[in-house]
Amino acid sequence: MRRSQRLVLITKHLTENPNKIIPLKYFAERYNAAKSSISEDLNIIKSSLSYSMEGVLETLPGAAGGVRYRVKNSKDKIQSLLGELCELINDKNRLIPGDYIYLTDIIFSPEYSYRIGEVIAEKFLEKEPTCVLTVETKGIPLALMTARALNVPLVVARRDIKVTEGPSVNISYVSGSSGRIQNMALPKRALSEKARVLIVDDFMKGGGTARGMTELVREFNAETAGIAVFISTEEPKEKLVKNYTSLLVLEKVETLRGIIKIRPGIF
Amino acid sequence: MRRSQRLVLITKHLTENPNKIIPLKYFAERYNAAKSSISEDLNIIKSSLSYSMEGVLETLPGAAGGVRYRVKNSKDKIQSLLGELCELINDKNRLIPGDYIYLTDIIFSPEYSYRIGEVIAEKFLEKEPTCVLTVETKGIPLALMTARALNVPLVVARRDIKVTEGPSVNISYVSGSSGRIQNMALPKRALSEKARVLIVDDFMKGGGTARGMTELVREFNAETAGIAVFISTEEPKEKLVKNYTSLLVLEKVETLRGIIKIRPGIF
Repeated sequence: MRRSQRLVLITKHLTENPNKIIPLKYFAERYNAAKSSISEDLNIIKSSLSYSMEGVLETLPGAAGGVRYRVKNSKDKIQSLLGELCELINDKNRLIPGDYIYLTDIIFSPEYSYRIGEVIAEKFLEKEPTCVLTVETKGIPLALMTARALNVPLVVARRDIKVTEGPSVNISYVSGSSGRIQNMALPKRALSEKARVLIVDDFMKGGGTARGMTELVREFNAETAGIAVFISTEEPKEKLVKNYTSLLVLEKVETLRGIIKIRPGIF
Repeated sequence: MRRSQRLVLITKHLTENPNKIIPLKYFAERYNAAKSSISEDLNIIKSSLSYSMEGVLETLPGAAGGVRYRVKNSKDKIQSLLGELCELINDKNRLIPGDYIYLTDIIFSPEYSYRIGEVIAEKFLEKEPTCVLTVETKGIPLALMTARALNVPLVVARRDIKVTEGPSVNISYVSGSSGRIQNMALPKRALSEKARVLIVDDFMKGGGTARGMTELVREFNAETAGIAVFISTEEPKEKLVKNYTSLLVLEKVETLRGIIKIRPGIF
């Protein structure tokens, strides 16, 4: 196989397997090439990604070593994604009675969830989360794509206990915005002790659901590595969780007056 | 930029954008190269993918033309994935009282949902679905990854009507296995007339939920392009839907006697 062909196939494999350590030996055997040739291939890939700021290829030495492709977007690219999302959302046709915005198409979009998931993953790479947690339903696509970019499992809390999931840990929590009591359940086998959990959700108003998830994490003797939401509301300023990151901040929505004000968060 | 660098960046872009027509001009401008050079790059990528049976690069002529990367796995690779899944599932620790199997970790796994989504997408590429439909909750990851590989939107039916989603179409249907009446709602703006809908779900026993989804599709004057499920049960043989494809077939599960029998479907 020629170098040009190997470059194509190795790049495809790395793109499909972010944040995974792959030994050089794997590529050498797969493409029947000397380790030194693979090493040169990887140098070309590394410099190409770095040149166009489309990810980082890391080399990890030692017996357990290899290469690891990590998602990394330039600040410009992230800002341009957030700007694109604000523009998309800032559309009067999205207004729904009760001062809501229709976001389902964006949240369930494979393209946007993929891109948003990468941005969230990148932000929390250094915290080395061992899994991503969300609560059904609308947080799932973003959380799944974040988990993909981090190469960790996704864990989904349910609103009700499911017979198909075995013994579970259940908590009640108070919704920050409505003040109502809600439930959340997670199968006992879904989360191990000492897990470092990245919490991802689509929307945060009062922060009650996010806080509920941190409490659920604590029930498992695991640790919250971070909280990321797609959109948080400007008000109330005091949320029920302290440290969280939001891609977009919803300043105002008034359906009757046709007002949507949304801006990129500090990201 | 050198050819080797362009090969890396174009391959990455194509891998991240399956089933999307990309004009040569896009790459020519992005990498500041002549169209003829880009054309040669694409030929190398095409032959590499074809050589290793890891996808197909199609060239579409004409003004709206360009190249399109489509997922395509060899039969061997698909069979080996199905075998791997059977082995993973065939584990007594997964048995749950009531003759259930714990599958949540597999269904929510970014890695498996990505690979399964590709296999489903590939199977239905020729039907040219314009969107993927599932019902919350466990079908979402597979459906999302299928939609990603097809480059079409994902639409998720909800069990209850949500105030945040505006006017919706609601149906009641009879669950094939339990015989109970269930509800399903889809926002009116989620599906357009004449949509060709690929229905994806995680599990099928009686087929009532899948049938409910086809009825929902009909309410929108849209058309069902196909039905794919991750696992269907051998019994009852007669499902409430006729044409469906299942990756795996569950022959038997008996928790008390420690029995799981599962095999690859005809795929």
